[in-house]
Amino acid sequence: MKVLPECYVCALRQVLAAARLAGGDDFAIACLKKASEILAQLPDGLTPPEMGEPIYRIVREISGIRDPFSLQKKRQNEVVLALYPWLEERVKDSDDPLLTAMKLAIAGNAVDTGAQESFNLMKSISDALEKEGRYEAYELFRSKLEDSKAILYVADNCGEIVFDKLFIETIIRRLGAVEIILAVRGGPIINDVTEAEAKDVGLGELCEIIPTGMWMPGTLLEKTTEAFKRHFERADLVISKGQGNWETLEETDREIFFLLQAKCPVVARINKCDEGNFLLLHKP
Amino acid sequence: MKVLPECYVCALRQVLAAARLAGGDDFAIACLKKASEILAQLPDGLTPPEMGEPIYRIVREISGIRDPFSLQKKRQNEVVLALYPWLEERVKDSDDPLLTAMKLAIAGNAVDTGAQESFNLMKSISDALEKEGRYEAYELFRSKLEDSKAILYVADNCGEIVFDKLFIETIIRRLGAVEIILAVRGGPIINDVTEAEAKDVGLGELCEIIPTGMWMPGTLLEKTTEAFKRHFERADLVISKGQGNWETLEETDREIFFLLQAKCPVVARINKCDEGNFLLLHKP
Repeated sequence: MKVLPECYVCALRQVLAAARLAGGDDFAIACLKKASEILAQLPDGLTPPEMGEPIYRIVREISGIRDPFSLQKKRQNEVVLALYPWLEERVKDSDDPLLTAMKLAIAGNAVDTGAQESFNLMKSISDALEKEGRYEAYELFRSKLEDSKAILYVADNCGEIVFDKLFIETIIRRLGAVEIILAVRGGPIINDVTEAEAKDVGLGELCEIIPTGMWMPGTLLEKTTEAFKRHFERADLVISKGQGNWETLEETDREIFFLLQAKCPVVARINKCDEGNFLLLHKP
Repeated sequence: MKVLPECYVCALRQVLAAARLAGGDDFAIACLKKASEILAQLPDGLTPPEMGEPIYRIVREISGIRDPFSLQKKRQNEVVLALYPWLEERVKDSDDPLLTAMKLAIAGNAVDTGAQESFNLMKSISDALEKEGRYEAYELFRSKLEDSKAILYVADNCGEIVFDKLFIETIIRRLGAVEIILAVRGGPIINDVTEAEAKDVGLGELCEIIPTGMWMPGTLLEKTTEAFKRHFERADLVISKGQGNWETLEETDREIFFLLQAKCPVVARINKCDEGNFLLLHKP
């Protein structure tokens, strides 16, 4: 997906939110001015995460803080880990544990400090358990999954990653011997998950964790590491989480299943759904 | 009031809304990039309307359309004129017609295409008639008004101007012989009222209409015309409508009564009220 006019406003809103975490009004204005300068010079045809990369770099550079979101990320993982036993019960008690774990993995996508000004995780969990989403591709997903020996799972945010863990455990329980490669960001960007936070929640024991090499809130295939490209090509199944990964991977050549919430009016419009809808999208 | 970090995001959101009226995605992106360039170079310490001036000029210049809001402005006046007889009855039937007309003049301030993404005029009218606002200065306002021979009324938006007409008629009915000078913008900016639209709704028969000279959504005293400055100085009472006029006139030397809705989180925070609150503010 290419940047649309709305993305410019959203980018500046995100700079403001990030700057507020790292300093006061004067600092925020300095960040906003520098970000405006970057927006003015942005080449055409970028994806939204490519726009996000230099924008968030500004806040890091002006503040000298490498990861302004580090405390938020830690708390997000802690809170969802505290919910984990309860979430696990919902999955085990359900008629179709794989489907329930998948819906909850989409619910977890609500934990996003970038795309929205605020989020309501409790509502998302309740929507996952009680409301319908766009899950028409689920039967196909399940059958492809059952034939898979190697799965590439492209992660998105902290907090959400704990829901991913539950989904991954459910997949392993169902399939038995399966190799899962978990791809995470190469460096801190918004509240996106990097190697450290994926290990913190215990995913190192279930998967091989590899960084994509990206310091942007998405996965631009041509700029990923050789290792990522190799797994992307050879995996039997690719599961991609969240809007930023969808925005950057939806035009690649291979088959992907995307799990995301449509968090902004632009993404909702393109996918012909309402803002906040839960989507399992199949790209052949 | 000086520009705060939130104003940068709001400015870009307003450019997007204005650009959407005048063209498609590519046009909107061109406007947003040019506006970003301006934001990056903006001197410190401006008021929000001073920031709005070059931002909206961009849309005019790139589109070649002098007044992208002209149709909106026409419709806003037409709709409120259609409501006029009903509004007039509400004023005449009330215990204190002056107070009711004043509250309705604040309700009319909802008709603002700039400060908010959307507005709900019906809710505003109902809030004016049924809910409490911050009207503690009303007794003082009424007594000052009764001693006034010359009143300067600084207008804000189209649509709203029809409510102003009702308020002005109510003032004239109460005071009898009084001179009312209605100050309007010098040229088209957002949906702000200029001389043409003030005359369209019949205000030329009740007041002397003068342009402030401003092509910005506010009134920067040092840049107004000599005629405006003279009236501003010699009027017995100055009534100023809306947020943009408050943002620019609140630090001037003379006594002013401001009638406005707090339409953004920044203005609400400064005035220690909630967003959407109705305010009659007295500046001594």
